[in-house]
Amino acid sequence: MSEFFADVPQIKYEGKSSTNPFAFKYYNPEEIIGGKSMREQLKFAMSWWHTLGADGTDMFGSGTVDKSFGTDGDLMKLAKAKVAAGFEFMQKLGIDYFCFHDADLAPGGRTLAETYENEEIIKETILVEMKKTGIKNLWGTSNCFTHPRYMHGAGTAPNADVFAYAAGQIKKAIDLTVAFGGTGYVFWGGREGYETLLNTDMEMELDNMARLHRMAVEYARVIGFRGDFYIEPKPKEPTKHQYDFDAASTIAYLCKYHLDSDFRLNIEANHATLAGHTFQHELRYARTNGFFGSIDANQGDMLLGWDTDQFPSNVYETAMCMYEVLKEGGFTNGGLNFDAKTRRGSFELKDIAYAYIVGMDTFALGLRIADRLIQDGRIDQFVQHRYASYQRGIGAEIVSGQATLKTLAEYALQMGEVHTNQSGRQEELEGIINNIMFSL
Amino acid sequence: MSEFFADVPQIKYEGKSSTNPFAFKYYNPEEIIGGKSMREQLKFAMSWWHTLGADGTDMFGSGTVDKSFGTDGDLMKLAKAKVAAGFEFMQKLGIDYFCFHDADLAPGGRTLAETYENEEIIKETILVEMKKTGIKNLWGTSNCFTHPRYMHGAGTAPNADVFAYAAGQIKKAIDLTVAFGGTGYVFWGGREGYETLLNTDMEMELDNMARLHRMAVEYARVIGFRGDFYIEPKPKEPTKHQYDFDAASTIAYLCKYHLDSDFRLNIEANHATLAGHTFQHELRYARTNGFFGSIDANQGDMLLGWDTDQFPSNVYETAMCMYEVLKEGGFTNGGLNFDAKTRRGSFELKDIAYAYIVGMDTFALGLRIADRLIQDGRIDQFVQHRYASYQRGIGAEIVSGQATLKTLAEYALQMGEVHTNQSGRQEELEGIINNIMFSL
Amino acid sequence: MSEFFADVPQIKYEGKSSTNPFAFKYYNPEEIIGGKSMREQLKFAMSWWHTLGADGTDMFGSGTVDKSFGTDGDLMKLAKAKVAAGFEFMQKLGIDYFCFHDADLAPGGRTLAETYENEEIIKETILVEMKKTGIKNLWGTSNCFTHPRYMHGAGTAPNADVFAYAAGQIKKAIDLTVAFGGTGYVFWGGREGYETLLNTDMEMELDNMARLHRMAVEYARVIGFRGDFYIEPKPKEPTKHQYDFDAASTIAYLCKYHLDSDFRLNIEANHATLAGHTFQHELRYARTNGFFGSIDANQGDMLLGWDTDQFPSNVYETAMCMYEVLKEGGFTNGGLNFDAKTRRGSFELKDIAYAYIVGMDTFALGLRIADRLIQDGRIDQFVQHRYASYQRGIGAEIVSGQATLKTLAEYALQMGEVHTNQSGRQEELEGIINNIMFSL
Amino acid sequence: MSEFFADVPQIKYEGKSSTNPFAFKYYNPEEIIGGKSMREQLKFAMSWWHTLGADGTDMFGSGTVDKSFGTDGDLMKLAKAKVAAGFEFMQKLGIDYFCFHDADLAPGGRTLAETYENEEIIKETILVEMKKTGIKNLWGTSNCFTHPRYMHGAGTAPNADVFAYAAGQIKKAIDLTVAFGGTGYVFWGGREGYETLLNTDMEMELDNMARLHRMAVEYARVIGFRGDFYIEPKPKEPTKHQYDFDAASTIAYLCKYHLDSDFRLNIEANHATLAGHTFQHELRYARTNGFFGSIDANQGDMLLGWDTDQFPSNVYETAMCMYEVLKEGGFTNGGLNFDAKTRRGSFELKDIAYAYIVGMDTFALGLRIADRLIQDGRIDQFVQHRYASYQRGIGAEIVSGQATLKTLAEYALQMGEVHTNQSGRQEELEGIINNIMFSL
Repeated sequence: MSEFFADVPQIKYEGKSSTNPFAFKYYNPEEIIGGKSMREQLKFAMSWWHTLGADGTDMFGSGTVDKSFGTDGDLMKLAKAKVAAGFEFMQKLGIDYFCFHDADLAPGGRTLAETYENEEIIKETILVEMKKTGIKNLWGTSNCFTHPRYMHGAGTAPNADVFAYAAGQIKKAIDLTVAFGGTGYVFWGGREGYETLLNTDMEMELDNMARLHRMAVEYARVIGFRGDFYIEPKPKEPTKHQYDFDAASTIAYLCKYHLDSDFRLNIEANHATLAGHTFQHELRYARTNGFFGSIDANQGDMLLGWDTDQFPSNVYETAMCMYEVLKEGGFTNGGLNFDAKTRRGSFELKDIAYAYIVGMDTFALGLRIADRLIQDGRIDQFVQHRYASYQRGIGAEIVSGQATLKTLAEYALQMGEVHTNQSGRQEELEGIINNIMFSL
Repeated sequence: MSEFFADVPQIKYEGKSSTNPFAFKYYNPEEIIGGKSMREQLKFAMSWWHTLGADGTDMFGSGTVDKSFGTDGDLMKLAKAKVAAGFEFMQKLGIDYFCFHDADLAPGGRTLAETYENEEIIKETILVEMKKTGIKNLWGTSNCFTHPRYMHGAGTAPNADVFAYAAGQIKKAIDLTVAFGGTGYVFWGGREGYETLLNTDMEMELDNMARLHRMAVEYARVIGFRGDFYIEPKPKEPTKHQYDFDAASTIAYLCKYHLDSDFRLNIEANHATLAGHTFQHELRYARTNGFFGSIDANQGDMLLGWDTDQFPSNVYETAMCMYEVLKEGGFTNGGLNFDAKTRRGSFELKDIAYAYIVGMDTFALGLRIADRLIQDGRIDQFVQHRYASYQRGIGAEIVSGQATLKTLAEYALQMGEVHTNQSGRQEELEGIINNIMFSL
Repeated sequence: MSEFFADVPQIKYEGKSSTNPFAFKYYNPEEIIGGKSMREQLKFAMSWWHTLGADGTDMFGSGTVDKSFGTDGDLMKLAKAKVAAGFEFMQKLGIDYFCFHDADLAPGGRTLAETYENEEIIKETILVEMKKTGIKNLWGTSNCFTHPRYMHGAGTAPNADVFAYAAGQIKKAIDLTVAFGGTGYVFWGGREGYETLLNTDMEMELDNMARLHRMAVEYARVIGFRGDFYIEPKPKEPTKHQYDFDAASTIAYLCKYHLDSDFRLNIEANHATLAGHTFQHELRYARTNGFFGSIDANQGDMLLGWDTDQFPSNVYETAMCMYEVLKEGGFTNGGLNFDAKTRRGSFELKDIAYAYIVGMDTFALGLRIADRLIQDGRIDQFVQHRYASYQRGIGAEIVSGQATLKTLAEYALQMGEVHTNQSGRQEELEGIINNIMFSL
Repeated sequence: MSEFFADVPQIKYEGKSSTNPFAFKYYNPEEIIGGKSMREQLKFAMSWWHTLGADGTDMFGSGTVDKSFGTDGDLMKLAKAKVAAGFEFMQKLGIDYFCFHDADLAPGGRTLAETYENEEIIKETILVEMKKTGIKNLWGTSNCFTHPRYMHGAGTAPNADVFAYAAGQIKKAIDLTVAFGGTGYVFWGGREGYETLLNTDMEMELDNMARLHRMAVEYARVIGFRGDFYIEPKPKEPTKHQYDFDAASTIAYLCKYHLDSDFRLNIEANHATLAGHTFQHELRYARTNGFFGSIDANQGDMLLGWDTDQFPSNVYETAMCMYEVLKEGGFTNGGLNFDAKTRRGSFELKDIAYAYIVGMDTFALGLRIADRLIQDGRIDQFVQHRYASYQRGIGAEIVSGQATLKTLAEYALQMGEVHTNQSGRQEELEGIINNIMFSL
């Protein structure tokens, strides 16, 4: 078998003093952090689309990266080469999971039947590699946004034929996920929204989206899928407005349509910030409401208004992310999927390896820091102490439900003025974070 | 009684050919539009705070407008003068409703008891004016964000004393609203959020906020309040992140805590855009989910990242707003409250009248256009036609629940490719809107 | 010759009461507004790229619009068909000008020589059509951003070969512009910026960009180009940061490198707002500094952070744009180029006609309103009056240069306090604008 | 003399293993980094306004922090107490410089004459403390934005009386700066912009602003000021649009009005990001154009659209800032002024000390990392190598000015296609930064 990433050696941990660009400086897979090995805590996954497909095309330029993997234009040959290249890459990087859209794996045919056939062939190729390598599937999904037929949406399309076609595609994507033993199935509704309200029946569209999600759950549970369904919120792009704007709007939707027992969230860092939230906010909010699921690990540019899907390099972000993950008790069915692509000017295949290394090291640093933060205890103790007034007296009455507006008014009338406020100490706490980060 | 707005005459409708700055050009109160008089359709309300209180202070400058209304520093005298000035202003503008925070009406005392006393005195003054003029209360609310005691929130404060104080304040604000016959009670949680997650227990805060809202409902229903409770979403400012970020997050919250039968939303234009949504989106989303309530009529600057609370002057916005209101069948307990203030450089009292005139005329134009849009029918017919495929065949099976992923997959396998997509026609529809707007 | 836009009839002015989607409601080409015919005032131009090339591809989806114009994959046949289709379209819409990138006209070859040959062939085809129809070229430009060779920029590329290639392309694009009698030559530096400062020598890049611009001027003046060079500012996208961020940064650049006598600005509405400015701001700022040139007529979505290039439909924007154009005395070498594309879901060729109609009508409304605004005089008089204090006394001394910090301090010491401020009257002025708009 | 910051001890360097909140962990004043002591490299300055004046007031809430410093409402007593408190604070923190607005030092009087008198008294008090402590003045400025008289601007006011008053204020602020031996004088034009173009004569306003700046230079040079004038760019807030939007627009202005030999820029981190630029971009751009001057050290919230003026805690930002400073050869007349305030909920005086400690440590870390980055050399070598093609052959001809569009076209015609592009390696470079940061 030919080697596709010939420039890329097996990547090993060499520690922070190494300057070898092909080495991990912080990610030491078998090292125990927070009670588990780093590889178990982090559950890194390779994204099939960006890693094996994205060629640097942007809205103002055509592809810069050659991802033909030695093939000559035949799409099925390419699909097979991608399998080989992908498993080579995951092995070289020591990545245990992959994530995919149906359309990433195999080319779409002229008919859905042809597409199914293509997918079946590639499925077998992948199963062989999985068996050989022990690499697992984290989750699967269906691409219902690239093809022109989905121009107005899939589940929310104003055209029943399109809805049906999407259903057909999703059925097969679920089949594939189950075949691979995937523990999650994702819906990202890139065109499940609207371009203008002038032509949109929002109520019908939301009802239909829920119909599609419900059908998917019913089908998958019958064929034995035991994993989680995820919705991946994103506020906008490609459509002007997407219904799954952020964690909160997605939860509102899931509850309204009684989908909340089957669905969790797949939180993406870049989508969080595009919605006006921090990455940590979306994770905390998901946790607080019982919808924490999986993570799309990437990074946006806070000064740009579109999805840049950069590889994570900001340790502040990954530290607070991993703090939330550790507080949740770690991942169950979810993991960290690198929904990230190299910059258009990083056009060599080895740039992809460099990018994964920086991404994995950045999350490794995040995990180390988050664990230290919890061990250190100062932040958690501060928070616990801050709310202590709800454990006694009037505070306990509020929490237990004994207090009423009247009894509290009487209490307040006695009080005179509040004399018990305490400083929020934001600056001191930020100093503690820096101190923990920069004394590893 | 002295006249406070001496420069401002009684404002009358003179039609679009008038150049009198003290005349309505489009708002003709008794003219019937969409089956009701304009005054009934629009239900304009004066905001006590901005109109009678805001003095032009901003983060980099002190007040420019003299709103002492002839008083000399005594706060109770000022509060009474504001009542007289407010009713004079509403009468001159022909405004039928007012909205208030407790703190706008009467000065806070050294103790809550003193505050109650002050509020009682002003309540009586207002009741006299209401009886005399027939002006009504649209809604009331309590200011639990200005006083330093609320530095970390009210219902979400990490201090039970603060929660209790807020409860005491809200109890009285509800009493006042009931006394005035108000049909709504608003919660805007300007500090119900966080500055940094480093010091925040989000779960506890959300639970506590719900406890406060539940207590308020229970109290109010007992004392006979039959109106609606509203939450007014705003994403950020003053706090870094507010829990009631937008309509969707508020609805997620209301459903989680089973507050959905008592609460509706008070949608503000400027808050919508700060959250990354159009004003119309928030209204449509509220309607679609059954939470449409009332409206804070103002306008933000789309290039500024803070709440500018400008008087509405953009007719595109008000037309689409009134389209949603008409589609909803008009207001029931809600109305259009001008949560808007004159610019700091518009420092004369008559600027407030100019501002209300432009705001009321802009909504009057919006109403006229929205009504024409519905009469015209082209937009609505387009939308209806666009989704017609769900009324027959496979579409009807989807809607009725008969279809499954399997039956749809079979249908799609037969179909080959989708050949039934239709253009979204956004540009043509935008042309229709302009045509209707500019042929009044 | 086959008809490409067979569904689209000749578009005529039918006035505002028409509901014919294939008619102008406000654009009446020969009507005199502000002393010239509307067609002369507006100087509409068709953009070759969006109109004849854009197929609806976005970052998450492939093309929806068939722009093969009956050809079968041969790129030169397609290029010729585009010429025929373009001139048919311009004639049907009554558009007098076109704008182009070299790469829009003819396919790039395997070598620059081949590209030149292709361009020569299409040049001749176009010249025939120009002669036949009387349609003129507004401006030309070179696409130095789509091809992978420009991944790191063209004039600012860190690779001299790329700089040279760009120079070769631009030379020919200038030749074409001169051959067509174009009155402008545009530089839009989509990749003239950086992705990260970590790999960037900003000083070298700016110096090089200026070298390229200077060479272009020198070459063009020698071969007889008498028109204007334009830089088209855009802050970001595709690169993270572009040097020609906005009008001000472009002017700083032009002055630093002494390019200010040959260059003016091509202001695009959507680029203005992406930079944090209003469209009117950029026009006013360009005028105030003597750099007003030409306009890319389109519209962004204020809630989206990327270039949506929508057809203009907001009359507020076009009214204030045309106000600036009229105040400037109209266009000289510039005009209104529709750098705008139909939405991806508007996939039929006739949607392009609908879109141009709404764009042209929106600018026609803008022109009518701007002219009315100037005739009306209230706004201009207000401004003139507002600054009147600089025409006499201490104000005149300030303006004439007689005053010094010392003499002014003495004056201020005498003054006591400023008692002469006047209200800015923003709300009243906004009411006047609405009144003029809605009483056409 | 009473102690104002009684809770705050003398702050000393204890190293990164310390958990003492009242100790520096990274700032070791006398340690040599990059050839100078840290205190010389960093030149920290205390901002008089935020540190001694800001009381936590925001647009939705009144003050939370008691900054009466033991006084009882008499403004001159307060001004004197602030002097004592400020010097105590600077000594305890080991800060060598202060920055001030005239209005921070002494209360404004009923007349300018009275203001002058107040300022004279406080000047003497400060001079005594300066002599006693050796603390120096970094720069002074005049507050021409808070008082209502400046509602429409100062130098750009449409009222000559206001211009004159501002001139009188600035004259005295320059006098004070000279008396204190300050090495810089700053203009921040918070109201030098506009709220709406409807009432604005931009040309007149820009001309007048330049007149004011020129007068200030002329006056100051006569009385012996040898330092730098600075403009501090900020895009918006308080006005909708400020003329000194960013570094580029300010440089365009300075060049147009021939003020470039006297003025440099005072770059603020939070203002940079509000303008859509990174902090590093503004510093690099200023350096590249020869306008680097001084720095306002703070930090914004990238998800908030207003000036939060937070204390710096993000080490990525300070590292790249100090990289630019070191590359410039360090500060000459400028320094690092903490234009930063504690959060409203951090209401104790000791929070200010915590905040300065985190800010100073964050910049100390930044300096250490920047120095390591330069020592390490990988980044700089990469950049140098990247542009190497301009040192030979065709590249050298481009740089020397020998090349023309024609000769380059001939070169490109020979070349065929560009085969010499190199990867931009953004991901690898980001990994190097992290590696240097996290191996201190």
